[in-house]
Amino acid sequence: MGLENVKALTFDVFGTVVDWRGSITREGQKLGEAKGITGVDWVEFADAWRGGYRPSMDLVRTGKLPWTKIDVLHRMVLDELLVKYNITGLSEDEKVDFNKAWHRLDPWPDSVAGLTRLKSRYIISTLSNGNVALLTNMAKWGGLPWDCILSAESVRHYKPDPESYLGAADLLGVEPSEVMMVAAHKYDLMAARDVGLRTAFVARPHEFGPDREVDVEPEDWVDVYGTDFENLASNLGS
Amino acid sequence: MGLENVKALTFDVFGTVVDWRGSITREGQKLGEAKGITGVDWVEFADAWRGGYRPSMDLVRTGKLPWTKIDVLHRMVLDELLVKYNITGLSEDEKVDFNKAWHRLDPWPDSVAGLTRLKSRYIISTLSNGNVALLTNMAKWGGLPWDCILSAESVRHYKPDPESYLGAADLLGVEPSEVMMVAAHKYDLMAARDVGLRTAFVARPHEFGPDREVDVEPEDWVDVYGTDFENLASNLGS
Repeated sequence: MGLENVKALTFDVFGTVVDWRGSITREGQKLGEAKGITGVDWVEFADAWRGGYRPSMDLVRTGKLPWTKIDVLHRMVLDELLVKYNITGLSEDEKVDFNKAWHRLDPWPDSVAGLTRLKSRYIISTLSNGNVALLTNMAKWGGLPWDCILSAESVRHYKPDPESYLGAADLLGVEPSEVMMVAAHKYDLMAARDVGLRTAFVARPHEFGPDREVDVEPEDWVDVYGTDFENLASNLGS
Repeated sequence: MGLENVKALTFDVFGTVVDWRGSITREGQKLGEAKGITGVDWVEFADAWRGGYRPSMDLVRTGKLPWTKIDVLHRMVLDELLVKYNITGLSEDEKVDFNKAWHRLDPWPDSVAGLTRLKSRYIISTLSNGNVALLTNMAKWGGLPWDCILSAESVRHYKPDPESYLGAADLLGVEPSEVMMVAAHKYDLMAARDVGLRTAFVARPHEFGPDREVDVEPEDWVDVYGTDFENLASNLGS
């Protein structure tokens, strides 16, 4: 496979390492119970919150907004959703805490074990659009054993901008061809491949719940395929 | 002590967490034996290499050099020292590897145990002038259990520039007063304190070897004093 010179694995996080949908749904339900909020479908709310993420990020990518952290973008979307779902009576502290639900996303069941195996052979780093604080807190929350926390924030370019992948390789002190991007999303891997990184696809068929079809087909342009992180570790000889 | 709101500890690394002098001396001796280099006092060489670090960094801090990583600054100093010590016959690969001796510095005996205790209560991050790759490789080498790797490189300002400390707090998503800088060097702590961080001094009397007096006196402007990292953990209730 010609992958002997890969030194570092960089990981997409939302959806690839952690289950944002299940976790945000749970956080919404918990808040609803605590505050007596009724009539909100928290699964739909989680999807809507996530759905607002890319458009808000694209405002930054196209220069319509200056550099803005995901924490702030999440809050912009949350404020709109609170109006849309007619959720009232939350204090500022409660909104801040609910917004930090994105720092408390649970890993998929195989993530910690698979990452631990991969760490024995490679440098393992996040490469997420989530900001550094979000990724650091999430790692502590879920026990994710990262060697390094890299973020779009580290280079002030959101994925899939080329600068995000090339900046990560530069920060890790290796050539782009010595980095393998790991993600459950093909657009992310395509952008990484286009600037010279190696790629690993991990299937996460349940990212969007039971009712939405997810593209988990193997592709001949992807270097390695994993059915989950344990399988990826096996396929990379870790 | 009013330190209840401290959420993150940021650590100076060279001298505070790791023994650069002993480690670089050992790497020099190893190279000397492998290449038959004689007549070099590798302890003196280590001191000279470290001695070239601050002047070269100050060229960046004062704008005489554009942003330049420590790996590159270390190499500039190394190239001068190889001439000065009349060390010839090294291939480019050998020079690259010797320069990476700074990625292979050994922790002080108490560092890993103390950091592990502190990690149970705080976010623990590097805040070093070493670049991200250097700090990441060093953590893997020495088993340092960081939650996050932050560097002057993360904000493109070397310590003791105020931006380095304030940028680290911003990346960690906390207020400056919620961050405690940990260092064996008072100038580093003074600069951190001046922009609102809390401070912890750790005594490293042997950083410069047995013959050089090191200032390890307690100061009333320092929030916490530790005789080593285990003692610091005890003094912080970890």
